[in-house]
Amino acid sequence: MSSSTETAQGWLRPEELDDVRDRVPIVYVEALPVRVDHLGAVERVGLLLRHRPDGTFSRAVVSGRVLYGETIREALWRHLSKDLGPEALPQLPTHPAPFTVVEYFPDDGRRSGFTDPRQHAVSLAYIVPVDGECSPAQDTLDLAWLSPGEALMETVAADMSGGQDRLVRLALAHAGIAP
Amino acid sequence: MSSSTETAQGWLRPEELDDVRDRVPIVYVEALPVRVDHLGAVERVGLLLRHRPDGTFSRAVVSGRVLYGETIREALWRHLSKDLGPEALPQLPTHPAPFTVVEYFPDDGRRSGFTDPRQHAVSLAYIVPVDGECSPAQDTLDLAWLSPGEALMETVAADMSGGQDRLVRLALAHAGIAP
Amino acid sequence: MSSSTETAQGWLRPEELDDVRDRVPIVYVEALPVRVDHLGAVERVGLLLRHRPDGTFSRAVVSGRVLYGETIREALWRHLSKDLGPEALPQLPTHPAPFTVVEYFPDDGRRSGFTDPRQHAVSLAYIVPVDGECSPAQDTLDLAWLSPGEALMETVAADMSGGQDRLVRLALAHAGIAP
Amino acid sequence: MSSSTETAQGWLRPEELDDVRDRVPIVYVEALPVRVDHLGAVERVGLLLRHRPDGTFSRAVVSGRVLYGETIREALWRHLSKDLGPEALPQLPTHPAPFTVVEYFPDDGRRSGFTDPRQHAVSLAYIVPVDGECSPAQDTLDLAWLSPGEALMETVAADMSGGQDRLVRLALAHAGIAP
Repeated sequence: MSSSTETAQGWLRPEELDDVRDRVPIVYVEALPVRVDHLGAVERVGLLLRHRPDGTFSRAVVSGRVLYGETIREALWRHLSKDLGPEALPQLPTHPAPFTVVEYFPDDGRRSGFTDPRQHAVSLAYIVPVDGECSPAQDTLDLAWLSPGEALMETVAADMSGGQDRLVRLALAHAGIAP
Repeated sequence: MSSSTETAQGWLRPEELDDVRDRVPIVYVEALPVRVDHLGAVERVGLLLRHRPDGTFSRAVVSGRVLYGETIREALWRHLSKDLGPEALPQLPTHPAPFTVVEYFPDDGRRSGFTDPRQHAVSLAYIVPVDGECSPAQDTLDLAWLSPGEALMETVAADMSGGQDRLVRLALAHAGIAP
Repeated sequence: MSSSTETAQGWLRPEELDDVRDRVPIVYVEALPVRVDHLGAVERVGLLLRHRPDGTFSRAVVSGRVLYGETIREALWRHLSKDLGPEALPQLPTHPAPFTVVEYFPDDGRRSGFTDPRQHAVSLAYIVPVDGECSPAQDTLDLAWLSPGEALMETVAADMSGGQDRLVRLALAHAGIAP
Repeated sequence: MSSSTETAQGWLRPEELDDVRDRVPIVYVEALPVRVDHLGAVERVGLLLRHRPDGTFSRAVVSGRVLYGETIREALWRHLSKDLGPEALPQLPTHPAPFTVVEYFPDDGRRSGFTDPRQHAVSLAYIVPVDGECSPAQDTLDLAWLSPGEALMETVAADMSGGQDRLVRLALAHAGIAP
């Protein structure tokens, strides 16, 4: 696919990336995959399940870096395709504005409540309806489709890190759903 | 379909509606149907073509009243299905907030620039990607799919009334497209 | 002030309003007053306190009808001035789009979770920073400024009716604050 | 002020910045300063005037980089204070979501229509009402307050570069104002 060629220049060797991460905020995109009914109302929220080294698992939304030369739409498509598989058919938003911007800092000192030990990341967050079949790839164990009520439960939040449980709450609120 | 039964109570006789229109603002929904590429970017804008009594035609976005007891999502679905046909497969937004609110007044005195001789209408406007086949029904002559550049042309604006040409511009701006 | 003359035609006698309320959805505006720091971050949330007939009190956001011939901005200003006093200096948003739309139905049958026994109301909701001195007027007992954390507490939610506690949660989420 | 100490680590030597700019997209904030009436409607748009080496001048919105460790709100405040002076009293938004995201690329190849020869920048754009007195500082010649109609004129657009004239149009559309 042409977009991989176009963005190939954006890839960095690990040591290059580490170097950059100490100097500037890194642009991220995050997407909450959802299943909607025919009226557009959210019925299910998709959370990725991943193994942790200690044998437990963690839950996460789709998330990743925007590469040099890559558009936000291309980055969203790339990360969604990687995490949900090539048949997921994500419906990217028509508007460029995210529903929220999450600022991850290496420490809690900034008190944004969102942390990422690797970097200062500025993350543009979107809700993305997904119509097709999802087959989690790579390092993803599974994709769990939860009802909005389940996604808001404390026990689910406990499996998420860096504040992503709160990102899920912000996303559902944007969709009109509050606990 | 159950929703038609549920909302049946919302229908009013013409004289009832006229009576209400003199007393309160009327809730409307408006939708700009769009064709998008796989990255969600707007490729085409759908405008309805209708005959005018004088033999010319006018262009319009999908627009209609919200009935008593009807949700906004149901009203959007009903008007889109009526104007684009039952196979249009509109993808309603996951969020309840419109990208703009248009206030139509019977006269120019309020200087909103949006007018409707019949009523004071408060209209919630949405961009709606449409995936399926469209077969304009009822009083609609045709549905024209224009490029964003064409939709922004003065000659197209001249065929729209009440300020709807400006609504199209606001919608495209929300999608990141400016003249 | 000229706007009161202009909107005077919008007032209805109680029996007229009852009549209309049975026929069409009624347009409302709702505003969550907030105190912000110099960077725009929400520090305090303003909730109105009102006596209930049974001696207890209820909490509410600023809320009211949009009159015939009145703009949304005028309606917001009128209700904020009435509830917070003439010195509140509310900073109305520059954009017409609300952060959410709340649909109140007379019964729970629509399962929106928002109810209003009097009517079907479509309410455009805004967050409004308030800079000046507030002196609650009319039927309002007091205005309580709560921290976002306090506003999200269950005990506070229990004092709100019709689902307004959830509206507060949706508003705080829009401001980037999740429980 | 403490924030300058906190963000001091974010400053980079020119050669460091050049190095980073070749590797990752750079996070920017942009703000369109506006004067609003008491109902929040935009009355004037503030554009910075700067000398060009050739003796002509250019117009621009407030714009600048987000530093490592700096929040978006802090970056907005810093750039607004620098460009409009310390008495401008900008009213930063209560919500973190920008009204649009602009993607600047070094070449036109990406066809975003927004270009920046120095870098790939991802810019979060906000409308910021400004209440106080503005005294443009540093390299800014002047600050011109234009009516929305003037700001949308072709002759004004011709004085802006990189596509910022279109950013002004997107901002005004968000405020409900279309040409």
